[in-house]
Amino acid sequence: MPISPPLMTPLHAKRIRHLTSINDLRIDEIEAVFALADKYLRELGDPAIDYRIGRSMEAARGSILATLFYEPSTRTRLSFETAMIRLGGKSISSADPTTSSAAKGESLADTVRVASNYADVLVIRHPRDGAARFAAEYSSVPVINGGDGAHEHPTQTLCDLFTLKRENKDLRNMNVAISGDLKGSRTIHSFVYALARFGAQITLMPAKGMELPEHVLWRLSQEFNHTPEPKEPEEASVDALYVTADQPHQLALIAEPEAIDVHLEKTAARKKKNIDAVYVTRFQKERWADTDQDYPTVDADFLKGREFSDSRVMHPLPRVGELDVALDSDPRAVYFRQAAYGVPIRMALVSLLLGIEKDNAFEIFEDGFRGGHATLYQQPRELGIRCSNPNCIVHDPFDGKYTKNKFHLIEHQGRRLRCLYCERDIQSFVVGNKKQKTYEPHAENPGPLPKNVNDIVFFASAAEAEAALYTGKPGKKSTPRL
Amino acid sequence: MPISPPLMTPLHAKRIRHLTSINDLRIDEIEAVFALADKYLRELGDPAIDYRIGRSMEAARGSILATLFYEPSTRTRLSFETAMIRLGGKSISSADPTTSSAAKGESLADTVRVASNYADVLVIRHPRDGAARFAAEYSSVPVINGGDGAHEHPTQTLCDLFTLKRENKDLRNMNVAISGDLKGSRTIHSFVYALARFGAQITLMPAKGMELPEHVLWRLSQEFNHTPEPKEPEEASVDALYVTADQPHQLALIAEPEAIDVHLEKTAARKKKNIDAVYVTRFQKERWADTDQDYPTVDADFLKGREFSDSRVMHPLPRVGELDVALDSDPRAVYFRQAAYGVPIRMALVSLLLGIEKDNAFEIFEDGFRGGHATLYQQPRELGIRCSNPNCIVHDPFDGKYTKNKFHLIEHQGRRLRCLYCERDIQSFVVGNKKQKTYEPHAENPGPLPKNVNDIVFFASAAEAEAALYTGKPGKKSTPRL
Amino acid sequence: MPISPPLMTPLHAKRIRHLTSINDLRIDEIEAVFALADKYLRELGDPAIDYRIGRSMEAARGSILATLFYEPSTRTRLSFETAMIRLGGKSISSADPTTSSAAKGESLADTVRVASNYADVLVIRHPRDGAARFAAEYSSVPVINGGDGAHEHPTQTLCDLFTLKRENKDLRNMNVAISGDLKGSRTIHSFVYALARFGAQITLMPAKGMELPEHVLWRLSQEFNHTPEPKEPEEASVDALYVTADQPHQLALIAEPEAIDVHLEKTAARKKKNIDAVYVTRFQKERWADTDQDYPTVDADFLKGREFSDSRVMHPLPRVGELDVALDSDPRAVYFRQAAYGVPIRMALVSLLLGIEKDNAFEIFEDGFRGGHATLYQQPRELGIRCSNPNCIVHDPFDGKYTKNKFHLIEHQGRRLRCLYCERDIQSFVVGNKKQKTYEPHAENPGPLPKNVNDIVFFASAAEAEAALYTGKPGKKSTPRL
Repeated sequence: MPISPPLMTPLHAKRIRHLTSINDLRIDEIEAVFALADKYLRELGDPAIDYRIGRSMEAARGSILATLFYEPSTRTRLSFETAMIRLGGKSISSADPTTSSAAKGESLADTVRVASNYADVLVIRHPRDGAARFAAEYSSVPVINGGDGAHEHPTQTLCDLFTLKRENKDLRNMNVAISGDLKGSRTIHSFVYALARFGAQITLMPAKGMELPEHVLWRLSQEFNHTPEPKEPEEASVDALYVTADQPHQLALIAEPEAIDVHLEKTAARKKKNIDAVYVTRFQKERWADTDQDYPTVDADFLKGREFSDSRVMHPLPRVGELDVALDSDPRAVYFRQAAYGVPIRMALVSLLLGIEKDNAFEIFEDGFRGGHATLYQQPRELGIRCSNPNCIVHDPFDGKYTKNKFHLIEHQGRRLRCLYCERDIQSFVVGNKKQKTYEPHAENPGPLPKNVNDIVFFASAAEAEAALYTGKPGKKSTPRL
Repeated sequence: MPISPPLMTPLHAKRIRHLTSINDLRIDEIEAVFALADKYLRELGDPAIDYRIGRSMEAARGSILATLFYEPSTRTRLSFETAMIRLGGKSISSADPTTSSAAKGESLADTVRVASNYADVLVIRHPRDGAARFAAEYSSVPVINGGDGAHEHPTQTLCDLFTLKRENKDLRNMNVAISGDLKGSRTIHSFVYALARFGAQITLMPAKGMELPEHVLWRLSQEFNHTPEPKEPEEASVDALYVTADQPHQLALIAEPEAIDVHLEKTAARKKKNIDAVYVTRFQKERWADTDQDYPTVDADFLKGREFSDSRVMHPLPRVGELDVALDSDPRAVYFRQAAYGVPIRMALVSLLLGIEKDNAFEIFEDGFRGGHATLYQQPRELGIRCSNPNCIVHDPFDGKYTKNKFHLIEHQGRRLRCLYCERDIQSFVVGNKKQKTYEPHAENPGPLPKNVNDIVFFASAAEAEAALYTGKPGKKSTPRL
Repeated sequence: MPISPPLMTPLHAKRIRHLTSINDLRIDEIEAVFALADKYLRELGDPAIDYRIGRSMEAARGSILATLFYEPSTRTRLSFETAMIRLGGKSISSADPTTSSAAKGESLADTVRVASNYADVLVIRHPRDGAARFAAEYSSVPVINGGDGAHEHPTQTLCDLFTLKRENKDLRNMNVAISGDLKGSRTIHSFVYALARFGAQITLMPAKGMELPEHVLWRLSQEFNHTPEPKEPEEASVDALYVTADQPHQLALIAEPEAIDVHLEKTAARKKKNIDAVYVTRFQKERWADTDQDYPTVDADFLKGREFSDSRVMHPLPRVGELDVALDSDPRAVYFRQAAYGVPIRMALVSLLLGIEKDNAFEIFEDGFRGGHATLYQQPRELGIRCSNPNCIVHDPFDGKYTKNKFHLIEHQGRRLRCLYCERDIQSFVVGNKKQKTYEPHAENPGPLPKNVNDIVFFASAAEAEAALYTGKPGKKSTPRL
């Protein structure tokens, strides 16, 4: 039986605020989270330093946080539940897909619509990229992304930055080295966006074949190019990777993982520059087929160079071997503190999203997002181009049927379509004119789009357009890329 | 090793009240639930309309609700937990049989005895028919049936009826069409009993082979025949199915599912009668072997007839394809509101069961049930007839050993034995006299039973009686059935 | 990649108190738990007798208990959560390894370090012996052992003893018969230690091949020999097993399980001595390969002897057939009450560990344990002897890499090394001198150890010592054992 095109209108449009990407927060809003977390730590005590039994408040009394987790978790779920309890509220939890309605084949959209009538705020973890943004379309209460596929994990990034701030690092002037699976780690993706926006320098040390995805690198260089100019540019140009936009893979493409340490030590030594933080991530075995490759490991030997003397060693946890347990007593190791800060940070976030503290809430919006400059295009599932990311929520067997194909049009260095949900870019497509039933082939330097947004339909290729009975127009002359 | 006959005496007989079937509640008690749910909605706000953070009370402070769920659930468990929190209480949960004592082979009876010493009210979901009633025998606190096999799901029915009431439908004068798996859906069984008792008219639209069970049809026609006389009997006789007791299968036996829509449209058109509600259910894949059959689907096209112009489309959720997502924005769709009402309804139910609100509690009884007219017969597992339903809790490998065979004797249109737990009827059996060691064969119009209840033992057949060394007596002359 | 030797220093050494073995509590502390539990029962009502809705306090308001359960549980987890709620606190729970970070390969050590920054007290259940003690090394808050492999289950023992006390048994003058799997049952191990320390007499009735482990028997006889002298020694010597240290296996080694009952009845009859309690345990199928053997079953027939006339029948539950359900209504059956007491006992324990009640807290210590007379030896994983128990946490693939080999040196009836975690003893080993690079072979009556503790390294054998380039010294002359 054919499925009619679903309507995407939110069922209960309200003025709320969601957090599905770290980029949903302005820099000053991130700082507001930190300020409130600091306040909570002062009032309730830092559990890692100042142990106090029963350190809770009453502010959120009567409020409910729901965790809807479709992937394993301990830390994220428990820290959210703890945060809600410490605020004075309570939580409900659906943490095991095999004992929930998901086992009966229920879509995330339906579950979210129901749960958002029970709870005051939802935290979603899901194996599909873009699931949190998708869930937000169906929720009448704030949705927090607790990790969606390989896309983002923004609350982890808040903990990460807060930890560095508590360690007296200047977030606007840091040099951060990031090691491991940069391709599949959602924590890394949120983290590098935030670092770039704060103006930090980033040194990438990927495992072989696990480099930062192309579209993330492109956004770093083209959209978040806030990096302060290096003081001594000839020395620091290597680790401030994303300021060298013409060679974005410089480090990421180093072929031999065993060469990374050497390389890094050499460049760091040459530069005499301190690494403020070394961020280590595990191999995301749930996302990649297991390989026998040599995954980079961080241990005391790795950290013996002078550039690491004031580094902080960070890890989002869990670790499975890539971070030597012998480092646990090294004063530079801050990963357990990083985890501990999950509670005050999530308390602050929930408080600001719900407006629990008087006169202290995030700005709210009709659809929950502050929006941006890019134009949004929607087209039904049946017509034209689809997101190119096979793990995007729009391709989910249960939830896909609820989706339209939605893209932000990015007009910068050419023209790109960015999936609204998973934020993966499509660079090659053709533009159709629904009224004229014509299409314009892809071009390096494309011409203007039809004036009326509703006249536009995007196709993956000329062939797809022709199959839909659109007729090709001769393309504009392409001019060399700048 | 032989197992001694277990004693069925409740361990802690108390004056409480259980809810294992919708028929455990009087009509005025159902209305009391609705009145209290209305009050809670006024006080706390309807989450679907009137969004308020932290909408909770303090009434149930210090009370604990335990959910013991042996089958997957999200909605029912989370809505009970939410209801308890909104009332001011807390909850404990055992939601995954694989991580609980059930994994070690513990019986439900033992688990319930323990949990009822922890919590103030228990909610049970279990794959066996009759499990909730069985659990009630071992609980010192109120037991609520959260779904037992294919038997009943009474709290869902409370939500269903409440939704119709909130939509300004007159519960005593409705015409409700019910589509899908009427055989395996416990929500349907509770719902049709309640509809019949309120006097609604019911139109059945089963999937092929998934008709309402014979014993449910019999009860509808013979026990709940409260249907108001149709105003224009010649037109309405078809959909008020259960008033035509001589042909109870009229619609249910329509062989071709594709014919149902046509048939329904025709009869409705002919009758010019409105359908107040269309209730859709999913295929209960956990109860039936999967088949490739064409399961009925409800979509905009189905609902285009004039008789559906003021219908409400309902579904207990989760849905898996039988209800088109395109209907979600149709004003007639009320299924998400139906789910949302799960919270105020369950708040009201828990409140009335526990007597949380001053002077507002259900009447209570020694064994937790208001009882009925039928005589209860108990016989040990080793002697005589057993429940004919293979999915009844009495046949469970763990819990069966705790059970006696308990039947209500129904003396109406002949004689039936109804299993106390799963309420499945046995129509063919023989009556033995323990004192005389004789039995009387089955007869259409049976003679009187031995006077002393304790003298009676029921056998499945003359052969079974003979095997137990009972001697046959010549049966009374059978007279033609009325 | 080689793993550097981990540092075992607790990250956040604090003055707290853990409970990992029943022997971590002094007798007067056990009695303090009982006194507080009695007080809570008086104030809140005994749910098994005196049913009161909403029976909770406010004392622990704002406090959080975390349950980290790596094995199935209903009773233990729910009773801890209930206890915390009844005290006025809240709980967070990670009860399913498959949906937690354990599924990603996280070590218990890391999970505990994180969770102890969230919660105020942790309850750990784990399949490895010694896991709770191990967890305590990484926790900044009190750790309670909720069952670790086949090692101990001390809070169950508190419930067991409290039940007997509430039944007016004199804990210092009891005769307790224990039936079933005495080898794999952690509840039994904690229970017999406590019974011995209180001075009770113990009669062992193991299933065939499931006798109490050698090292438990040795501790009973050699370390907890507090048994009051039997009044009529010639009659009672058999069941007071552990006072006959030269023949510790007397009953445990009875080869034919069918002979046990007879034997017990005979000796009891001969002795005219009452059995105060019969403690039954299930077959620990998760620890042993299933066998077809005849597991001992307790039923009314078993209990018909006069010596059982005032017995209490106990079981830690769940039961799976070894305890006849027909006993449930026998006044001697107290197992459901035993489970019910889990709540007040755990309330009292948590209260005393956290110091929730003013002026009523356990004494606290720098590392959480009151310590003992035995010297602690630590040696890295790479050098010398390792724990001989293959199920010890030190051999866990994830957690083993965090461990040193730690032993208490027991100088009594020869010399033993007792694993700090699982408390399994090693009787045969050789002592090396790190400074001199020499070793002394094992001897029945060994000579003195090197004076400086840090000079000592233990090897499993002379061969192991030689492989580490240690040279043998001629052993002291062995003298006949006393």
